[in-house]
Amino acid sequence: MKSYRKELWFHTNTRRELINITSTVQNCVLVLVNAMHITASVFINDDESGLHSDIEKWLEHLAPEKPYSQYKHNSYEDNADAHLKRTIMGREVVVALTDGKLDFGTWEQIFYGEFDGKRKKRVLVKIIGE
Amino acid sequence: MKSYRKELWFHTNTRRELINITSTVQNCVLVLVNAMHITASVFINDDESGLHSDIEKWLEHLAPEKPYSQYKHNSYEDNADAHLKRTIMGREVVVALTDGKLDFGTWEQIFYGEFDGKRKKRVLVKIIGE
Amino acid sequence: MKSYRKELWFHTNTRRELINITSTVQNCVLVLVNAMHITASVFINDDESGLHSDIEKWLEHLAPEKPYSQYKHNSYEDNADAHLKRTIMGREVVVALTDGKLDFGTWEQIFYGEFDGKRKKRVLVKIIGE
Repeated sequence: MKSYRKELWFHTNTRRELINITSTVQNCVLVLVNAMHITASVFINDDESGLHSDIEKWLEHLAPEKPYSQYKHNSYEDNADAHLKRTIMGREVVVALTDGKLDFGTWEQIFYGEFDGKRKKRVLVKIIGE
Repeated sequence: MKSYRKELWFHTNTRRELINITSTVQNCVLVLVNAMHITASVFINDDESGLHSDIEKWLEHLAPEKPYSQYKHNSYEDNADAHLKRTIMGREVVVALTDGKLDFGTWEQIFYGEFDGKRKKRVLVKIIGE
Repeated sequence: MKSYRKELWFHTNTRRELINITSTVQNCVLVLVNAMHITASVFINDDESGLHSDIEKWLEHLAPEKPYSQYKHNSYEDNADAHLKRTIMGREVVVALTDGKLDFGTWEQIFYGEFDGKRKKRVLVKIIGE
């Protein structure tokens, strides 16, 4: 069995951002794509800006950023909400590869979801081959 | 390493429905079972109708279907809530296979969760073997 | 392809508890770690007690334990909230192994999240090797 490893790096300009990373992972039998940070997510959904804006609003409702003082974690940092938002969105996706392509339904796209950005962060791509 | 691919197709009569798909995936070392649609879920939980009804009510509370106008995504469609419900429930499960059987705890069962049904949709089963 | 199987057993003193299980899974190419119970979770996040306390409070807000009568599932049991809490937190993690080590970002740690404890429960570790 062969396996390959690749890191994708990001540095967003805003605290929260969704980045389509589908094209970077087209190769083998199974691929694991995971955030290497606990305030970011890798998830699969639609590449539609209205939905992305709905997700942002919905996550702010379920796990609001402010006031910072509502979270015990924020005595050290200000990103407790980002840990919770990523919990809702998920850390990783495992995707089947068939005939060298991501075995996806019509609308499936992989996103990196940043919830505490403005700094360098990365995603791990682990490919499992024959 | 061998791998196998199988599609399971569904066409629900109601917009939302939970379907037990455990028996269709009994074979190998590791199996990935994922929804191929971004408004549906594959998840593991109890096969108990009271709980299924609790999940339906809870998801409606966390991500209500109506009013449709509360979601930007709904200028194109009416299923923004289904994208959010599936986010909570998850897209996929990865399950270990030991001695040719799903290596499950007593109550674990795999479900297909439909959140925008009444049309043909499918699940991918990818089996990783020796 | 080789694969290994290991069970980790837990018996918590309190109904809800978070247990760091990172060190028990350091070996191969890919590792699946999953709860074998549908009222428990395996997830990856920070090993910081303030955050753990925030997660407890947040889950109680999203899926309150009491009153028990608010859930149909509780005509048989009293743990419907634990099924929902585990749904938010997730059943499993899939982690890449590189050079015999968990391929983790700086702060990633694996936790067993118990939401209906005070009894013997277990986690499955399935390691996929060369």
